[in-house]
Amino acid sequence: MTNPEGVSPILGGPVLIVGAGLIGASIGKALVAAGVDVHLWDIDHSNALVAAGRGAGQLDGLDDAAYRIVVVATPPSAVASTIVERLNRHPHAVITDTASVKGAIFTELTDLAAGQDVDLARYVGSHPMAGTQYAGPLTASDELFVDRTWVVTPRTDNRYDDVKQVVALAQVCGARVVSMDAGEHDRAVAEVSHLPHLMSILTAANLRHARAEHLRLAGSGIRDVTRIARSQTAMWRQILTSNRTEVRSQLEAIRDDLDDLLSRLDDPDRLEEFLGVGQSGARKIAGKHGHQMMETTAVVVEIPDAPGALAKLFGDVEAAGVNVEDLSVEHDPAREVGFLSIDVAPDRAEQLRVSMRNHGWSVRS
Amino acid sequence: MTNPEGVSPILGGPVLIVGAGLIGASIGKALVAAGVDVHLWDIDHSNALVAAGRGAGQLDGLDDAAYRIVVVATPPSAVASTIVERLNRHPHAVITDTASVKGAIFTELTDLAAGQDVDLARYVGSHPMAGTQYAGPLTASDELFVDRTWVVTPRTDNRYDDVKQVVALAQVCGARVVSMDAGEHDRAVAEVSHLPHLMSILTAANLRHARAEHLRLAGSGIRDVTRIARSQTAMWRQILTSNRTEVRSQLEAIRDDLDDLLSRLDDPDRLEEFLGVGQSGARKIAGKHGHQMMETTAVVVEIPDAPGALAKLFGDVEAAGVNVEDLSVEHDPAREVGFLSIDVAPDRAEQLRVSMRNHGWSVRS
Repeated sequence: MTNPEGVSPILGGPVLIVGAGLIGASIGKALVAAGVDVHLWDIDHSNALVAAGRGAGQLDGLDDAAYRIVVVATPPSAVASTIVERLNRHPHAVITDTASVKGAIFTELTDLAAGQDVDLARYVGSHPMAGTQYAGPLTASDELFVDRTWVVTPRTDNRYDDVKQVVALAQVCGARVVSMDAGEHDRAVAEVSHLPHLMSILTAANLRHARAEHLRLAGSGIRDVTRIARSQTAMWRQILTSNRTEVRSQLEAIRDDLDDLLSRLDDPDRLEEFLGVGQSGARKIAGKHGHQMMETTAVVVEIPDAPGALAKLFGDVEAAGVNVEDLSVEHDPAREVGFLSIDVAPDRAEQLRVSMRNHGWSVRS
Repeated sequence: MTNPEGVSPILGGPVLIVGAGLIGASIGKALVAAGVDVHLWDIDHSNALVAAGRGAGQLDGLDDAAYRIVVVATPPSAVASTIVERLNRHPHAVITDTASVKGAIFTELTDLAAGQDVDLARYVGSHPMAGTQYAGPLTASDELFVDRTWVVTPRTDNRYDDVKQVVALAQVCGARVVSMDAGEHDRAVAEVSHLPHLMSILTAANLRHARAEHLRLAGSGIRDVTRIARSQTAMWRQILTSNRTEVRSQLEAIRDDLDDLLSRLDDPDRLEEFLGVGQSGARKIAGKHGHQMMETTAVVVEIPDAPGALAKLFGDVEAAGVNVEDLSVEHDPAREVGFLSIDVAPDRAEQLRVSMRNHGWSVRS
């Protein structure tokens, strides 16, 4: 593997990106920023021009045999045929793709390759899990994948070095790599991406019954729920169709839950129980900047019975120099006293406790 | 109506806020910022202390007869009884509330008032449509209602001056006031708030079936859809229960759509048609900062066949000094040429066209 000066030590080039839309152009920009030699091709030449103009690489200009990595970032319906074509054209390259469904791609690939002399072992599937409701190279960003999950789906016939190259590609883009079998991946994205998309669509489609005046009452909640429903329908048609077996089973589970929920509407306790199931599901994936919610420890301080003292309490929390993750007020009905619960990283809790005690506060825990 | 120095000219005080949680304390902070004399009371005294410490007003300390406006911002289940109590205690005040369901409150109110000498005409219902997934006075903000919708639900027996006071209260908080009949309001919030909440809950609850490893693939889409599912279950239990007739009919409409959607999964054209219905619903309520999406006009410029020229194109768009709402690339397959479509406010389109032509670009429209 070549490793010329200026190129990221773990990622060999040159890289060819086939399909210079939002995903392809964003990968290009991230690689260029890391010093990798990137070339661009798109069936719509103006996409490649725009991507190049946005700093995502140069127009495709090398010999086919020169490329070491080829990233197929076309719309889903063109992915399998493009992979076969590129495997044939680039004998020294590992080919990867960015399609959001992996099982169907590989099935299509083996069908297309049947009877041909195609080296499928050089194809390593991958799925960068980022995107916006926009499409095309204009909104490309070299930070699109930073801290996002990028799934790599290696197979037993892949070469170790090829898998390593695809992992390095994702890492250079700033992504967190998760390795997973293709079938497992497809089940997982049905759960955490395709079903939520359809729930967003169902919520937004229901607005067709609403009077225009009622829409003036729409707040940030429904905007959050329906944001992804604005995405391109042509792309989602392809994604959902290629994963429809998993998507169907998710939708059927929702139908069962919906019937259950309807049966709970007249019973506040059973209704709240169901709300709690949803709340804990949402909390499992909540968190800042795409990370899991962080573990915190609560430091609990008694609230003095005077408003003036409270400003000092907040000031002293701030002065302790500890990053506060959450704050809440708790009550002790027996003693008729209130407490301020300050959530901080577990390894900073003791520092906060000491600091608050030094300032004269009554620290309960 | 008194109108002392320093008090907002349209809003008389003093104001008493009953229930110093997130909503009550945020109203208090906004009114205090506008110079209004605000007093606070909460059944949990530490909530009132914290709210006062956060600048939402002083602790309740005036004669009952002194208050001109009383805002009942308690949890939903306590609203009706608190309104009756406060109507009796404060003979010179208009009483309003912040509950998110209005029909049920008024029914409960008339039941409670039956046989008593209660002046219900002094109650004017209202619903400030803002909130976060947090509760309590700690996260209160005087900007919580800025540019948000605040529904006022006057009745024919209300006095004009009382309605005006409640409208002024909302306006001083920076909200956009919408006036609507209570029944109409409840139907609308079922459509744009309560149903979306349950769709978020259903999506999040479905994660109980997912393996922990699969949750690592969760991205910003599902986080958006499930954000509101993290909200307090006790509060939503009350909201949904008091509006359950409307909520049930919304959920039944979703069940029909879900069955329809399942029947479309194997037919990509019909599937995409349904995605389009969702997309147009979502677009109707999309937009910046809570406003409707703005009307734009597209200015279309030919993309030159050279990457270097593109940077100049973007530079010239910027130099035109026109605020760009959206950008997209369009293709003309017949001429094999690309176009940059620049969406701007209709009254700025001509300025941009002239500027681009002056810089030598080929402007198509």
